[in-house]
Amino acid sequence: MTDSNEAIRPELSNSALKKARKKEKLASSKARKQAPIAIVGGKKQDEIIGITHSKAQNFSAWYQEVVVKAELVEYYVEISGFFILRPTSMFIWNIIRYWFQEQITALGVQEASFPIFLSKKSLEKEKDHIEGFAPELAWVTKSGDKDLEVPVAVRPTSEVVMYPYFSKWIRSHRDLPFRLNQWNSVVRWETKQTTPFLRTREFLWQEGHTAHLTEELAGDEVLQILELYARIYEELLAVPVVRGRKTEKEKFAGGYYTTTVEGYIPSNGRGIQGATSHCLGQNFSKMFDITVEDPASKTSDKVKHVHVWQNSWGLSTRTIGVMVMIHGDDKGLVLPPRVANIQVIIIPVGINKSTTPEAKNKHYDELQALKNTLVATGIRTEYDIRDGYTPAWKFNDWELKGVPLRLEYGPKDAAKSIVSFARRDTGEKGTLPIIDLGKNVPTLLEKIQSDMYQKAESSFNNHRVEITEWDKVIPALDSKNVVLIPHCLQEKCEDKVKELTTGSPDSFEGPAELKTPSMGMKSLCIPFKQPVGLISGETKCLNPECDALAEKWCMFGRSY
Amino acid sequence: MTDSNEAIRPELSNSALKKARKKEKLASSKARKQAPIAIVGGKKQDEIIGITHSKAQNFSAWYQEVVVKAELVEYYVEISGFFILRPTSMFIWNIIRYWFQEQITALGVQEASFPIFLSKKSLEKEKDHIEGFAPELAWVTKSGDKDLEVPVAVRPTSEVVMYPYFSKWIRSHRDLPFRLNQWNSVVRWETKQTTPFLRTREFLWQEGHTAHLTEELAGDEVLQILELYARIYEELLAVPVVRGRKTEKEKFAGGYYTTTVEGYIPSNGRGIQGATSHCLGQNFSKMFDITVEDPASKTSDKVKHVHVWQNSWGLSTRTIGVMVMIHGDDKGLVLPPRVANIQVIIIPVGINKSTTPEAKNKHYDELQALKNTLVATGIRTEYDIRDGYTPAWKFNDWELKGVPLRLEYGPKDAAKSIVSFARRDTGEKGTLPIIDLGKNVPTLLEKIQSDMYQKAESSFNNHRVEITEWDKVIPALDSKNVVLIPHCLQEKCEDKVKELTTGSPDSFEGPAELKTPSMGMKSLCIPFKQPVGLISGETKCLNPECDALAEKWCMFGRSY
Repeated sequence: MTDSNEAIRPELSNSALKKARKKEKLASSKARKQAPIAIVGGKKQDEIIGITHSKAQNFSAWYQEVVVKAELVEYYVEISGFFILRPTSMFIWNIIRYWFQEQITALGVQEASFPIFLSKKSLEKEKDHIEGFAPELAWVTKSGDKDLEVPVAVRPTSEVVMYPYFSKWIRSHRDLPFRLNQWNSVVRWETKQTTPFLRTREFLWQEGHTAHLTEELAGDEVLQILELYARIYEELLAVPVVRGRKTEKEKFAGGYYTTTVEGYIPSNGRGIQGATSHCLGQNFSKMFDITVEDPASKTSDKVKHVHVWQNSWGLSTRTIGVMVMIHGDDKGLVLPPRVANIQVIIIPVGINKSTTPEAKNKHYDELQALKNTLVATGIRTEYDIRDGYTPAWKFNDWELKGVPLRLEYGPKDAAKSIVSFARRDTGEKGTLPIIDLGKNVPTLLEKIQSDMYQKAESSFNNHRVEITEWDKVIPALDSKNVVLIPHCLQEKCEDKVKELTTGSPDSFEGPAELKTPSMGMKSLCIPFKQPVGLISGETKCLNPECDALAEKWCMFGRSY
Repeated sequence: MTDSNEAIRPELSNSALKKARKKEKLASSKARKQAPIAIVGGKKQDEIIGITHSKAQNFSAWYQEVVVKAELVEYYVEISGFFILRPTSMFIWNIIRYWFQEQITALGVQEASFPIFLSKKSLEKEKDHIEGFAPELAWVTKSGDKDLEVPVAVRPTSEVVMYPYFSKWIRSHRDLPFRLNQWNSVVRWETKQTTPFLRTREFLWQEGHTAHLTEELAGDEVLQILELYARIYEELLAVPVVRGRKTEKEKFAGGYYTTTVEGYIPSNGRGIQGATSHCLGQNFSKMFDITVEDPASKTSDKVKHVHVWQNSWGLSTRTIGVMVMIHGDDKGLVLPPRVANIQVIIIPVGINKSTTPEAKNKHYDELQALKNTLVATGIRTEYDIRDGYTPAWKFNDWELKGVPLRLEYGPKDAAKSIVSFARRDTGEKGTLPIIDLGKNVPTLLEKIQSDMYQKAESSFNNHRVEITEWDKVIPALDSKNVVLIPHCLQEKCEDKVKELTTGSPDSFEGPAELKTPSMGMKSLCIPFKQPVGLISGETKCLNPECDALAEKWCMFGRSY
């Protein structure tokens, strides 16, 4: 077990923040090697280990502090924009991975592993695609000290890596649907500021690539996968999302249409793209010559070949960042039970200098028995009998790390055959009879999971407002809402909407965090569940400078 | 299901081979899109789909043909030295992955994910390490069209990526043992000729990195992990290995000592490194300043810091290549049941034009019932009711793909309530009563697994010869043996041994495959199980040009 008592990394954008942290850093740096042992020795029990930033007042600094102190990530100082995923993150990612893998295996998707590099030649086959990714490609130009004859790029996504082989392997309509998925990392050399999980120059994801005989069959799968993504957010991460379709402007480069699950960050009112499932149409199959004999043409004299309909879909470690942002609080991380590596932490209380060694040993044996009971019912449980730490210090430490449920157990509890509990999400406290522990704790964990979801959902519902008067848009954004507006769905109009809602950041001199209100809004998605009240052929696009009729209610917002 | 009827890829080194394949390629290329449908239509049932090269006569061409036709890999023609791992390979790799993950989780190893790139500065911290890897590093020098200020290299292994953070995270001896593992891919831009699985410019692996308080504790783990690697080869892949230690010359660059499991390829008598578990000693901990307070010094006045003892250990997709080389035959792949995606394939026989549709449907229902019985006992089972293929064609197809057990089921079998079976490994045929299928098939699969291992082990045992006369070394190598010789273990002497056993390839004009005899031998390992007969202080190093005494029996051989 490692200790979290250290300053956050120095990459924070806010210079005021940097200053404030400098002193702490110096102190921490000196204490680095000695501190934990001193603590173990009982000399520094009052040392503060918690989160120093307020989620409400400085959300960005709070986030960056939480992800580091809760040991989700470490900044990779050697190369900016890269992050190390620590075991707590990988545990969450693996929960997601195994769940999703099981679902797609059942759909008949097979796993493959394609090379990390793509050739320029393949990339250039699809014009829109290369335009979308070219500025962020990492180019390998040398091996050892020799120049490569032809540079190769690290994949930012694998369409052009994989599809030449789809052309080779798919040879009959009987090979369809043809479905491959791979779990890997991709590199997109972002020029914008990076944020752990949300925007990083390398990230872990899965990318599924499939081929179908018809548009309809492809479209069915796009939605099947989108629903799995929504369930990952909702059922595993307790994060509500809105399912919808991206506008033409926001769709995947080179694709036909993009569906998406969109999340919402209450602290700053921004929307955030959760995961996307694309129908690529026949764009790539035409470029890469992926055809099958049209089964309908077999009876006629002339055999016709048709281009397959393709999908690609991806979900990344961004999921973890969204979860942290939504559930965390000023004490640190709050983990939904279903993805928590440790779901229950048991902490002994009421053990002090007057406790005899025999009594202490007996008490610790009882802790072990409590743990065994819970482990036997499938609950991921640990107890914390580290010497030299007060119970209060341990409470803080496990709260920081987001453990959903704390059980406290002291001689007084023992006498009553109960344990005391404290919920991480609400702070609610109570007691549970030991005899029912194996039944009550799982129920309580499920209640925590469901309450966390309800809270987040209610927040999203309350901040997703239908607006039919343009003048109400900016005030709504400033009140941390995303908005649903009647819109024409034209690209140019979207640009205009962004322009009209953008403040003038240049004149702003306060901390970067407070710049948020000046950010223009962009379209997040056209929700599948459309509000009522939009009359086809009558309702105008809400943009006052647009003359077109509204096509749909479109969700706009400031966003990540 | 895709069809395998196509020429192997054109990268084969042997020019004679290339010519021989050219005609076939042209034909295949023309037939590519049409062939499978024609077959489905029943017009080309006699088309040959098998392996065209003899394992005994042209092992290298045979191997390259098998891995492609059995759909394990596809050559990535866009960038040489890279390969696509197809679902059959990924299935095997995942069997290995899940098994190993379970074992190391039980040991307390946690999963992490470090960035794909390393900085030159980190790399340069350990001199021997950089010398070992520098020539094969892939350097990213540009993002988009901009030059990076400081180029970064794709990791060839992650010691220097990870250890700066070990220094940060390990702060007390209570943090030890500290153990992280990651599953990823690494890039080593090989200049030697690449071979699917065995030597590729990118490969999948796991890399474990751990820190311990003492040399002894580190050493214990090195062997624990090595034993897991041996079990992966022996118990999952049915491949016998010799456990041992690498000589100084062959150890990991920058490490303290390297342990290894070494395999043997009977077809050409070469040794092959299976996986390595390294003790890095304190070399890296000194370079990266990874220390803890010496717990023994706590009672004294002066607190002493000690550098941790580190290990790193890795196992890669090379495992799959070794398995293919050892078990495959002239019909194609032979999969050990434990790693086979399809363990049992059921093929209907005796269904012909005179069979009524009703009889056929009934028969197919029975096939389904057979499958259900086997699936219910945990056997990965499929049946093949593709129309338009003869049973013989299907037999060939599934033999090519290595399915361990074929069940044939026709009306005659039905009448007797039996199924006929054919073992892939031995070709042995027989019948099984349907009533006992759920019991007999698992037993038979385990027998196949064990027989495959026994056969390979006996082959390795018979070709691992103890030699105490120098003149017998080259004849032994030419008879496809690896040799155990008394050796001084000195690096210079190893170089000399290689030189003395190397023929003169320049004068050789036959096919490349037959050049093998001219390859010099190198040390494979110092086996932990030492033969008897070496007398310390008396037995001479076998190298006739070496004056030193032998330290150990050392296993030498021509090798991959």
